[in-house]
Amino acid sequence: MHRTDQSVILMVEDSQDDIDLASVALRDSGYEGQIAVARDGAEALDMLLGRGEHEGSAVHPRLILLDLTLPGLEGLALLEWIRSHPEARMTPVVVFTSSDDPEDIRKAYMGGASAYVGKPVKASAYVATVKSIVEFWLRVNRVAY
Amino acid sequence: MHRTDQSVILMVEDSQDDIDLASVALRDSGYEGQIAVARDGAEALDMLLGRGEHEGSAVHPRLILLDLTLPGLEGLALLEWIRSHPEARMTPVVVFTSSDDPEDIRKAYMGGASAYVGKPVKASAYVATVKSIVEFWLRVNRVAY
Repeated sequence: MHRTDQSVILMVEDSQDDIDLASVALRDSGYEGQIAVARDGAEALDMLLGRGEHEGSAVHPRLILLDLTLPGLEGLALLEWIRSHPEARMTPVVVFTSSDDPEDIRKAYMGGASAYVGKPVKASAYVATVKSIVEFWLRVNRVAY
Repeated sequence: MHRTDQSVILMVEDSQDDIDLASVALRDSGYEGQIAVARDGAEALDMLLGRGEHEGSAVHPRLILLDLTLPGLEGLALLEWIRSHPEARMTPVVVFTSSDDPEDIRKAYMGGASAYVGKPVKASAYVATVKSIVEFWLRVNRVAY
């Protein structure tokens, strides 16, 4: 069993604007750990398994922030993989998406999402949302290993 | 499909002190909704299913706060029931317990807990913890129905 890298958030996100905004919001929340970024599901898999370009340096994040609409392997398919894989199944996965489609919410929970958060459009609301994610998931929630 | 009662938290907790403290903390966080309390797993089942004393008035909470050590049906057994029952399986369940045993944390996640939060001993820390639960789970998180 790997130990979780308590200081790593894995953001699975293809939009550079969203990566930049979330990174600013994380820093603004006092988060001082590492922010790992995977730009699609396949790269996230490589990071979680420590293969491909990430050979020998698997990431064991404390939290995965998962966008649903990704190029190639979709967010829900990645979630399904995470929840069926012993190395990653206990890792909290917060779906963080611009979709507020009830069907997406339902599918995310059925697929094993820990939580589902809509991305606010306004930057100030976006930062506030990321702050409460950090507050709960990194300061209050306990992880399994 | 039932609609979630957006304003209901179901606290599954047998300690009156903890019920009182959590209720004060919830009110202190600005939470104005209903706080339903089940004192053991069997009562929680009756409330979620609308049977027994709760015949015809099933509770569909936005969040379940679940203590692990309960008389009769244990917290983990209740969690297992929730995750295997279509009416309740998408409901966020935050385990809220005084146990910090890594084995309990692991079992909770394996059983489908959304998150795992330790109960702080000091009242001020307890209130702060409940506040960040309210902030994330009731103001930021989206539920499935």
